[in-house]
Amino acid sequence: MMLAMILAAIDGLLGIGACFGAAIAAIGAGIGIGKIGAAAMEAIARQPEATGDIRSNMIVIAALIEGVALFAVIVCVLSFFL
Amino acid sequence: MMLAMILAAIDGLLGIGACFGAAIAAIGAGIGIGKIGAAAMEAIARQPEATGDIRSNMIVIAALIEGVALFAVIVCVLSFFL
Amino acid sequence: MMLAMILAAIDGLLGIGACFGAAIAAIGAGIGIGKIGAAAMEAIARQPEATGDIRSNMIVIAALIEGVALFAVIVCVLSFFL
Amino acid sequence: MMLAMILAAIDGLLGIGACFGAAIAAIGAGIGIGKIGAAAMEAIARQPEATGDIRSNMIVIAALIEGVALFAVIVCVLSFFL
Amino acid sequence: MMLAMILAAIDGLLGIGACFGAAIAAIGAGIGIGKIGAAAMEAIARQPEATGDIRSNMIVIAALIEGVALFAVIVCVLSFFL
Repeated sequence: MMLAMILAAIDGLLGIGACFGAAIAAIGAGIGIGKIGAAAMEAIARQPEATGDIRSNMIVIAALIEGVALFAVIVCVLSFFL
Repeated sequence: MMLAMILAAIDGLLGIGACFGAAIAAIGAGIGIGKIGAAAMEAIARQPEATGDIRSNMIVIAALIEGVALFAVIVCVLSFFL
Repeated sequence: MMLAMILAAIDGLLGIGACFGAAIAAIGAGIGIGKIGAAAMEAIARQPEATGDIRSNMIVIAALIEGVALFAVIVCVLSFFL
Repeated sequence: MMLAMILAAIDGLLGIGACFGAAIAAIGAGIGIGKIGAAAMEAIARQPEATGDIRSNMIVIAALIEGVALFAVIVCVLSFFL
Repeated sequence: MMLAMILAAIDGLLGIGACFGAAIAAIGAGIGIGKIGAAAMEAIARQPEATGDIRSNMIVIAALIEGVALFAVIVCVLSFFL
């Protein structure tokens, strides 16, 4: 029974860690993709005829941040099932 | 009964983690989408004829942040039911 | 009775978490929508004839932040009833 | 009697959480609506003939922040009665 | 008597929470209304003939912050009577 208690307590701690981890990963994505998006908007306003290039590059570079952030959130979800 | 007590305590800790996690994910979305939106407003004011391009790109890049933030909030909700 | 005490303590912890979580989500919405609104005001002052475009885009992008923040507050309310 | 003591302690914790939560939500509203209002004042000074547009947009976007902040305060009040 | 002692202690905690909460809500109002007021002063200095418009808009937007902050202080006062 002592073991069951400890295991339950561990589950709780894991849950808190998962929630904070997912949230902090979302902040990371927000800071990074936010900066990229802001610069892309200004770039389109400055050079409207380069919109296609700016859009494709914006998506490529934002996808890199998105990839890490989503992977981090998935690692946090994983902690529920292990 | 000892086990039931521990399980209840765990539920409480999980609830606190979920609340803080969801709130911090909302801050992440606020920082990121806020920057993008601010730059988009200035870009429309600077180049009003590029409004269509700016709007579509703004929504694409904001959707990337929205995706991570909503996923993080859902991970936090998940912690209630696991 | 021991169990009832623990359950009551858990309710208290959950309540504190819900209050803080809802408040932090409101800060997130304030940061994000505040930036967007400030830039929109300046954009209208700079280009008054683009007011319609700016208003519609402002509401679209602010609604994305509003969605995440309200969802986070609802997650916090949820913690009262689970 | 032990139970009554614990319940009273819980009420105290809930009250502290509600007070701090409501106050932090007020900070969130202050940051967000403050930015919007400051930008609106400068915008009116720069383009006095666009005052009507600026005022209506200012109120729309400030209402979005007001909504989340008031909802957060109401969640905090709710914690007194649950 | 044990119960009376605990109840007194709880009242003390509630009082501390109410005091800090009211103070933090005042900080929120200070940040927000301060920004708006500062911008309004500069706006009047820049465009003295728009003073009427600036004053009326300043009062409208400051009233929104005032509303949330006063509500938060009332929640804090409420904690004395519950």
